[in-house]
Amino acid sequence: MKNLPTADDIRRAATILEGKARETPLLQSPLLNERLGCRLLIKPEMLQVTGSFKFRGAYNRLSQIAEPDINKGVVAFSSGNHAQGVALAARLLEMPAWIFMPDDAPAMKIDNTRAYGARVVTYDRHNDDRESLAKQLAIDHGAALISPYDDPAIIAGQGTVGLEIAAQMRRLEIRADMVLAPCGGGGLAAGTALALAGESPGTKVFSVEPRYFDDTARSLAAGKRLKNKPGHRSICDALMIPEPGKLTFDLNRRLLAGGLAVSDEDVGKAMLSAFNHLKLVSEPSGAVALAAVLSGAVDVTGLTVVVVMSGGNVGSETFRRAASGR
Amino acid sequence: MKNLPTADDIRRAATILEGKARETPLLQSPLLNERLGCRLLIKPEMLQVTGSFKFRGAYNRLSQIAEPDINKGVVAFSSGNHAQGVALAARLLEMPAWIFMPDDAPAMKIDNTRAYGARVVTYDRHNDDRESLAKQLAIDHGAALISPYDDPAIIAGQGTVGLEIAAQMRRLEIRADMVLAPCGGGGLAAGTALALAGESPGTKVFSVEPRYFDDTARSLAAGKRLKNKPGHRSICDALMIPEPGKLTFDLNRRLLAGGLAVSDEDVGKAMLSAFNHLKLVSEPSGAVALAAVLSGAVDVTGLTVVVVMSGGNVGSETFRRAASGR
Repeated sequence: MKNLPTADDIRRAATILEGKARETPLLQSPLLNERLGCRLLIKPEMLQVTGSFKFRGAYNRLSQIAEPDINKGVVAFSSGNHAQGVALAARLLEMPAWIFMPDDAPAMKIDNTRAYGARVVTYDRHNDDRESLAKQLAIDHGAALISPYDDPAIIAGQGTVGLEIAAQMRRLEIRADMVLAPCGGGGLAAGTALALAGESPGTKVFSVEPRYFDDTARSLAAGKRLKNKPGHRSICDALMIPEPGKLTFDLNRRLLAGGLAVSDEDVGKAMLSAFNHLKLVSEPSGAVALAAVLSGAVDVTGLTVVVVMSGGNVGSETFRRAASGR
Repeated sequence: MKNLPTADDIRRAATILEGKARETPLLQSPLLNERLGCRLLIKPEMLQVTGSFKFRGAYNRLSQIAEPDINKGVVAFSSGNHAQGVALAARLLEMPAWIFMPDDAPAMKIDNTRAYGARVVTYDRHNDDRESLAKQLAIDHGAALISPYDDPAIIAGQGTVGLEIAAQMRRLEIRADMVLAPCGGGGLAAGTALALAGESPGTKVFSVEPRYFDDTARSLAAGKRLKNKPGHRSICDALMIPEPGKLTFDLNRRLLAGGLAVSDEDVGKAMLSAFNHLKLVSEPSGAVALAAVLSGAVDVTGLTVVVVMSGGNVGSETFRRAASGR
C-alpha cells in the first residue's frame, strides 16, 4: 500500500506548482454575508488553470515522473476535470497522455482535454470497466496510470488549496471556523484537511457531496468505506464516484469534522447565486459546498466559513438548465 | 475648472483603497492564447467589490469628504455600477446616499444599490434631466454631487486598475504591448492610461466603446469632444454616455493610442467566451474590450495584451439573451 501524504508533501507540492498553478483569490460578497449572517469566503478554483483544482494534483504527480519514463507518457480516466488537469500537465512536461472519458461527459470537457493535446478514448459509463481499459493501455505503452484521487502526490497537490487558504486567512488576520470542500473520491477534502490540520488547528473541515452520492458522509458516520447504491443520477457529473478512495478515506476519517449532502435543486440555486453575487461560473459539482451553506445544510450563523468552489467547466446551456432547476 | 489628477493622486488612491477594494488577479487561458496567437491577460473587475471597478473611484472620492460634510451625504446619478460603488462606499464611510437611476436600469443594479443602503430615486431616461434633478437634491441637502467620471478623485481611483496591472506585470516579468479598457465617460481609460504612462511607458492604451456610442473614439480622431448621434441603442447599458467628459478627454487625448468600437453581436460572443474560457460572468459593457480582441477590431498577433473586463452586474436572463445574440 502506498504511503499517506504528509504536510511536508503539500509544502513541496506548493513549490513545484509555483508559476504553474494559480493562487486563486479569496472572494467575499457583502450582500451574501448580510443575508447569511456569517462571513463567507469563497476559494474560486474555477479560476484555476484548466478551470478546476484538478490541475494542482495532476501537475504535482506528473512532475515526479523521471527519465526514462517521461517519454512513455501517462494514462488517466476521468469524467473531465482530472482529464483536463492531466492533459495540460502532460503538455507542459512534454509527455504523451491518453485519457479515458465516458462518452456522456460534458462536451466542453472532452473538447478541452483534446485541445490540451491529449488523446481521448471514450468508453460506455454503464458497460465498460474504465479502470481495466486504462490499466491495459498503461501496460501496453509502459505509461504511468494517474489515479484521480487515490495517490499521495495527487492528494498533496490538491492540499495546496488548503495551504493557500491558511496563508490568505493569515493575511486577512482572521481564522476560519469551518472549511467546506466538494467531495468525489475525496482527494480535495483530504488534502485540504491535511494542510489545515497543521496550519489552522481548530478549523473544522467538512466534505460536501450530492444526494445519493454521499458515500464519504455515510462512510465517515459508519467508520468504514461504504458504497453508493446504484440507480441514482445527479447533475454533479464530477462527483458520481462509487465509494471513497482508500488513501483519501484513511485521511478523511481522521481529519474531517463530518460529511454533508445537498440536492440537485440546491446545487442549481447555488450556481445561480455564484453567478449573481460573485460573478463566477460554477459547474454543478463545483457548487455543492456553497449549496450546503445556502440551503442551511450546516448552520453558519456568526461563523467565518470558507467554501471551496472546485470547478467551472460547464456549457452555458447546461448551466441554464441546472440554474433554473430543469 | 478642476485640476487634472496626477500619477501621485493614483498612488494615494491605492493607499486609501487598501483593504477596501480588492486587488483583482490577472487571468489567462492557455486555450484562448493559442486561438488568438497572442498572450492575453484579463483584469477581471467583475470580481471587484460591488461587481465593477466603479467602487475604486467612488470610495476614493467619498473618503476625501471631511467633517462637517460627512453627515450631509452624497448624491449620484448612474445606470448602475457607479450607483453601487457610491452606495457601498457611503455605507462604509457612514454617509447617507441618494442615487438617481433610470427606471429601465437592470433590476439587479437597482436592487443591489438599495441593498447597500442607498435611497434610489428613479427617473425617465428619455424625458428627465438627471443632472438637474441630482443637482437640486444635492443643494437641498447640502450633499456632495459625485460625478461618475469627470472628477479628479474618481479618475485617480479608477487609475488604481492601471497601477495594479503594472505591478502584476512586473511580478510576471513581462511587459504589456497593449491595454484595452471599456469606455463610457472615460474615467477608467483615463486613469488606467495615466497610471501606465509612468509605470509602463511604451504600453499603448486603447479605449473600447459600443458601436454608435463611440464618442471617445471619434473625439480622439477629431481632436475635440464630439457627441453621439441620438436614436441608437446598445446592450451596453453602462456605456451609453452622450459625449466624453471634460477632464477625462483632456487626459485621454494625450494618453490614449486610439479608440475602438464593437458591435452588440461581438459583445455577446465575448460574454460567452469569458463564460466558457475564463469562468467569469461579464455584463455587456464589461466585455467590450475582450470583444475588440476576439472580433479582430485590433490586431494582437504576437503581442502581450491586457484586457480590462470592467463589470459583471447582469442577470442570468439578460446574460443568456446577450450571449445568444438576441
